[in-house]
Amino acid sequence: MINIAKGTQDLLPEVTSDWQYVENKLREIAQNYNYKEIRTPIFEHTELFTRGVGGSTDIVQKEMYTFTDKGDRSITLRPEGTAPVVRSYIENKMHGYANQPIKLFYEGPMFRYERKQKGRYRQFVQFGVEAIGAEDPAIDAEIIAMVMDIYQSFGLKKLKLYINSIGDIDSRSEYNKALVEHFKPSIEEFCSDCQQRIDTNPMRILDCKKDREHRLVKSAPRIYDYLNDDSKQYFEQVKLYLDQLGIDYEVDTNLVRGLDYYTHTAFEVMSDAEGFGAITTLCGGGRYNGLLEMLDGPNETGIGFALSIERLLLALEAEGIEIEHDDALDLFIATLDEDSKQYAVQLLHRLRKAGVKADTDYKSRKLKGQMKQADRERAKYTIVLGENEIKNQQVKLKDMNDGGEHVIELSSLTDELKERLS
Amino acid sequence: MINIAKGTQDLLPEVTSDWQYVENKLREIAQNYNYKEIRTPIFEHTELFTRGVGGSTDIVQKEMYTFTDKGDRSITLRPEGTAPVVRSYIENKMHGYANQPIKLFYEGPMFRYERKQKGRYRQFVQFGVEAIGAEDPAIDAEIIAMVMDIYQSFGLKKLKLYINSIGDIDSRSEYNKALVEHFKPSIEEFCSDCQQRIDTNPMRILDCKKDREHRLVKSAPRIYDYLNDDSKQYFEQVKLYLDQLGIDYEVDTNLVRGLDYYTHTAFEVMSDAEGFGAITTLCGGGRYNGLLEMLDGPNETGIGFALSIERLLLALEAEGIEIEHDDALDLFIATLDEDSKQYAVQLLHRLRKAGVKADTDYKSRKLKGQMKQADRERAKYTIVLGENEIKNQQVKLKDMNDGGEHVIELSSLTDELKERLS
Repeated sequence: MINIAKGTQDLLPEVTSDWQYVENKLREIAQNYNYKEIRTPIFEHTELFTRGVGGSTDIVQKEMYTFTDKGDRSITLRPEGTAPVVRSYIENKMHGYANQPIKLFYEGPMFRYERKQKGRYRQFVQFGVEAIGAEDPAIDAEIIAMVMDIYQSFGLKKLKLYINSIGDIDSRSEYNKALVEHFKPSIEEFCSDCQQRIDTNPMRILDCKKDREHRLVKSAPRIYDYLNDDSKQYFEQVKLYLDQLGIDYEVDTNLVRGLDYYTHTAFEVMSDAEGFGAITTLCGGGRYNGLLEMLDGPNETGIGFALSIERLLLALEAEGIEIEHDDALDLFIATLDEDSKQYAVQLLHRLRKAGVKADTDYKSRKLKGQMKQADRERAKYTIVLGENEIKNQQVKLKDMNDGGEHVIELSSLTDELKERLS
Repeated sequence: MINIAKGTQDLLPEVTSDWQYVENKLREIAQNYNYKEIRTPIFEHTELFTRGVGGSTDIVQKEMYTFTDKGDRSITLRPEGTAPVVRSYIENKMHGYANQPIKLFYEGPMFRYERKQKGRYRQFVQFGVEAIGAEDPAIDAEIIAMVMDIYQSFGLKKLKLYINSIGDIDSRSEYNKALVEHFKPSIEEFCSDCQQRIDTNPMRILDCKKDREHRLVKSAPRIYDYLNDDSKQYFEQVKLYLDQLGIDYEVDTNLVRGLDYYTHTAFEVMSDAEGFGAITTLCGGGRYNGLLEMLDGPNETGIGFALSIERLLLALEAEGIEIEHDDALDLFIATLDEDSKQYAVQLLHRLRKAGVKADTDYKSRKLKGQMKQADRERAKYTIVLGENEIKNQQVKLKDMNDGGEHVIELSSLTDELKERLS
């Protein structure tokens, strides 16, 4: 037997209606914030990610699905959504559009070759947004407000929002120097990754999972002390907006992003729901003022976030929130013989075209078996069609909720059902 | 600059609302027919397709994106949706579910390394359905009726439905013998592919694009003459259902499917709209009674179809049908100074949370520039916020459609807008 590929999952009908509900809601909220959908391809030229995500990251070094296509090009299944959106922005010259900033959202599968663990798949689904072309603290606040609006609209309560500023390029540069000075003399006490990071991305030592308890991490200089006036003012403005919107947050000075093109606002949403396990980050985001130029694009700035839908669903589960949706059948038509089956097929066709979710038996079950099938489909109404019903053009419409039976002319069945269902 | 990978496309905001509309409608119709969504991964073990699509097909021989992952497994980006759905059906033991038949639909990207041409991309999106676990002509008719319902619900009129039966396994076997007898003596007059097909899949000579005008193709034996009684009866029953549903069709005896596991009903929907160009097939489908066993599954039978969303959109264009959807902004808030901008951000937050699609200026435009931005976003309403408006807690709500202005208390703006927009 051929199995599913390792680290991937099938979403079966038992869960896809949850996914549909979640995706529709995400899309609706993004559209209320005037973000518009973009869909980029599943794969891109590998160079997009080595440059746009960064050659020193775990993603690029260890986790990419990279292969050579029949035209001998190096192709990679996208591990994240920002680099492709920025590639599309540049390639389609969106900086020349009259409407600015460009506010985009995306949703779809991403691919990372990670060790399998609960809530982590090698194919997972991200929803993300990017606002490109405006450096305005109001946009930073809007993006953060949208994330919180999203989680809260699903009923989640056990949320923590952490924010930080990593300043502009000048501030970062000063800060990186200070970090090197701080760590360099004792760098051999750190993990091998950090020994590399001291040269490539000193800030990433601060969020190393192995070295997080090291005394020098705890005593490291704080970015805030290295922010220049412009950077401080930008951050104060973002915080002021969040205060005015009544959004609770905590400043976490160790919340950094290692790559050179990240600037100013960085944020994360965590869940502190019990039973959510080790994975508590729901969403991460931040401003990237250097990314577009890094990818040979115009000198424009952007900010965005990405969230994993799998983790959103886990968070709902952890808080005991059930998604309500109506996927029950409206009508099941049971049939007594071959002629009524033929009649049922015609009736079904009319009902379905009118938007009634209806079905019948295709397994030649006896009446009792058909009624069981109707039950399993949680049919709201049933009718039984036989010789008499067709001759008299009348059926008993049974309300499966209260057991009530109503004699209906067959010609008015569609209207009757539409009215009862509305 | 890094470009998009060859043969793929970005779907930009100008078109994604069309896609959303199309996908929602497809999903709604499938659900009315009581089909439920399944999502399988983007990639599968390569063997699934070599066995499930067939080693002699162009897809497997020439068109697959196949690569080796870091675990040294051969992985292929799915070129079609049926084999993955059947793999999932088998792996998840759906033949043991109480509800039968299993009626599934799927939607998502597929990948084939084809020469680039209009309407064909190497990544394209298919919507398909599969009904597994019932051999009942009513299911065949239901599937065909659903396809026609789908196309017609978008307003398409220039549609042709072709159907055929290729019989059960015994009938096919007799027919294949007759084809070999017919073609073998002159097989060197045929293309090199057909010279292989005579041994692997003689039926596929009938739909060879190179040899379609050959006298021996035109004089070839017809499958109908080789159908045994059971197969004939099944086909008659399918046609009877279609007649009763008032669905026009034409029997095309050259409509065959080469692989051994296809049986009984085969069908295609074509567009004969002018200006649609060479690609006229919108959708293909058929019954596959041998596929599950071929993939080491239970002895169950299935039928399905797949349609390309790109081609559906091309067909709409060819018939001059425009998709109507409302993606205009509900409200644009123009601001006169920094204080009113801050107030606007709070107002926006309330409006958006209440489901009003609203935005403001993030580019420090003058009032005139802001009103232009509102126009470009096709805002239905605008307000201008300044010192006076905030002091008096009143704004003029301007209806951009009729130019009317209405003085509104700021505290009732959300309610007022919700009422006007509903």
